[in-house]
Amino acid sequence: MKSRAAVAFEAGKPLQIVEIDVEPPRKGEVLVKITHTALCHTDAFTLSGDDPEGVFPAVLGHEGAGVVVEVGEGVTSVQPGDHVIPLYTAECGECLFCKSGKTNLCVAVRATQGKGLMPDGTSRFSYQGKPIHHYMGCSTFSEYTVVAEVSLAKVNPEANPEHVCLLGCGVTTGIGAVHNTAKVAEGDSVAVFGLGAIGLAVIQGAKQAKAGRIIAIDTNADKFALARQMGATDCVNPKDSEMPIQQVIVEMTGWGVDHSFECIGNVSVMRAALECAHRGWGQSVIIGVAGAGQEISTRPFQLVTGRKWMGTAFGGVKGRSQLPGMVEEAMRGDIQLAPFVTHTLPLARINEAFDLMHEGKSIRAVIHY
Amino acid sequence: MKSRAAVAFEAGKPLQIVEIDVEPPRKGEVLVKITHTALCHTDAFTLSGDDPEGVFPAVLGHEGAGVVVEVGEGVTSVQPGDHVIPLYTAECGECLFCKSGKTNLCVAVRATQGKGLMPDGTSRFSYQGKPIHHYMGCSTFSEYTVVAEVSLAKVNPEANPEHVCLLGCGVTTGIGAVHNTAKVAEGDSVAVFGLGAIGLAVIQGAKQAKAGRIIAIDTNADKFALARQMGATDCVNPKDSEMPIQQVIVEMTGWGVDHSFECIGNVSVMRAALECAHRGWGQSVIIGVAGAGQEISTRPFQLVTGRKWMGTAFGGVKGRSQLPGMVEEAMRGDIQLAPFVTHTLPLARINEAFDLMHEGKSIRAVIHY
Repeated sequence: MKSRAAVAFEAGKPLQIVEIDVEPPRKGEVLVKITHTALCHTDAFTLSGDDPEGVFPAVLGHEGAGVVVEVGEGVTSVQPGDHVIPLYTAECGECLFCKSGKTNLCVAVRATQGKGLMPDGTSRFSYQGKPIHHYMGCSTFSEYTVVAEVSLAKVNPEANPEHVCLLGCGVTTGIGAVHNTAKVAEGDSVAVFGLGAIGLAVIQGAKQAKAGRIIAIDTNADKFALARQMGATDCVNPKDSEMPIQQVIVEMTGWGVDHSFECIGNVSVMRAALECAHRGWGQSVIIGVAGAGQEISTRPFQLVTGRKWMGTAFGGVKGRSQLPGMVEEAMRGDIQLAPFVTHTLPLARINEAFDLMHEGKSIRAVIHY
Repeated sequence: MKSRAAVAFEAGKPLQIVEIDVEPPRKGEVLVKITHTALCHTDAFTLSGDDPEGVFPAVLGHEGAGVVVEVGEGVTSVQPGDHVIPLYTAECGECLFCKSGKTNLCVAVRATQGKGLMPDGTSRFSYQGKPIHHYMGCSTFSEYTVVAEVSLAKVNPEANPEHVCLLGCGVTTGIGAVHNTAKVAEGDSVAVFGLGAIGLAVIQGAKQAKAGRIIAIDTNADKFALARQMGATDCVNPKDSEMPIQQVIVEMTGWGVDHSFECIGNVSVMRAALECAHRGWGQSVIIGVAGAGQEISTRPFQLVTGRKWMGTAFGGVKGRSQLPGMVEEAMRGDIQLAPFVTHTLPLARINEAFDLMHEGKSIRAVIHY
């Protein structure tokens, strides 16, 4: 079938809106009509050419919502008409990782997904007879996309897809990091570095967890109003002090915060986030994705005196098990999604959405097909 | 009073056996007659001059056992005749850290201890009228030493002090790291980097915890026999492969180990230990003390894919609460201490004990006063 899509033909170039060919779903696969997709810094990172795993041409996009159109052989968990959110972190329920009870990092489709292919090692997308790669197992920048069954969360059809598409990545990652990775408890203090969608979601998660002090940190003070609205108790601009930001936070809190979250992808900020964690038990969660080849560093004394350094992918959330419940939370208002949607645009203007993101003008721009 | 002591007058010079003056214990302090002391790489590190916090002249030594001689005003938890182990990690029971239930890093005497002084900011030691510094709150290289009450664990007087002095540092650190920091569970896989006293103690702790595979790693294959005797199931010499050791361990285990422990103080090995931890949930504990100014580093991807990096001091053990129980375990044979004691020497030959350690010939040399 034919599908409108925004294709990344080359690294560093704008996406091109073209009509691609989409093959029917094979065994274990599902054809999904995407109704809404947001875009995220990871899409921009891959498009820039800096992602060492990036392959071109490709249909990017991994934060979407849609409806099942057709299922391949053996698919039982969804059927045409079901509302779904594609998952870049699959959940097969059967691999070593899914069965461990300790992680959401399913490996069922990992190897092929990393190469931009479906689990059987081929692509369902082509343009003018030449194959186009998939991306993160989702490719939500095509109106019709093919996704592995294990990479689909079935959600309440009454949910607003313009909002819940955000649960496909950023918001879930931030909220999940608070509950699943850091396990923030009532009264704990929290520092959030970077007030994009993930950082704001961390603030929401921390508020849900009844954290005590929630310190929001960004070099762009324009972001503080929304951070406060979502639950931040303190807002700090590192530019306002000559001290390193970790020292500012330690002085504000006495011994540092119980939990810190890096939501940018900057390795220097990752260090600052660790070093502002409380002596004895503070922990720091890396959420942001750093540039290729970049490394984090610190003195080992920081860890020997009781800090823990950890990271999270998709907030430790098991998509098929847990995302439907988060959609319900959003419908009840326990997760606020509307404030994230600062712009809505048609597919034809998707490159403008990237511009808005790069200029720091949008939290999330949502594309309507 | 007069006391025989091995004094570090200058960085980088051998200790000198002299008769020093020891003042009586003041309020909250205790005079202890040390009967046995071991020596540890940390003493050697400070003596070398590389320790940025090292001050001279000082009475080093922090792994000892002794008997209470006299107590200062207000001391209630010990009395003359009690058998004690001095603690470089105090336990006051009242500070933020002691009360947290999350860490053993008591701050009651931390500031003055770091400066080589008693809690009131003065020293009890002098030589020819000039003050000599304390060390790590213990100074077990003097036959008579003064220690804060909060820095003394009262232990079973029937325990063999030649053995249980080792619980003052290395063995407790290794065993405690397994139980308190990593929380190794039955069947878990463990990798231990460095087979000195701490590494061997980690192996004992892992065996107590009923770990499955226990992989012992050292570049000195002479250490493998004792490692196996204590419970190692596999011994690996990094020199036997051209691959980085982390890759060797990952290939041996499939996805890496559940827990790894760095027991050397080498920042490159700290990285290897982290990177051989299991994707999704593996954790790596830094126990070794790195040189001044050295830093650890890795790609943040290692953490984002589920590994945790942490550290431990004194194995997370609260000395006054938990050390008496560990002494009982040693008396029952549940902790083996005898194999660690490879040499015993009189105080006059303490410099030979340092030589044996530097040459890798001893696990622990115990000094008898």
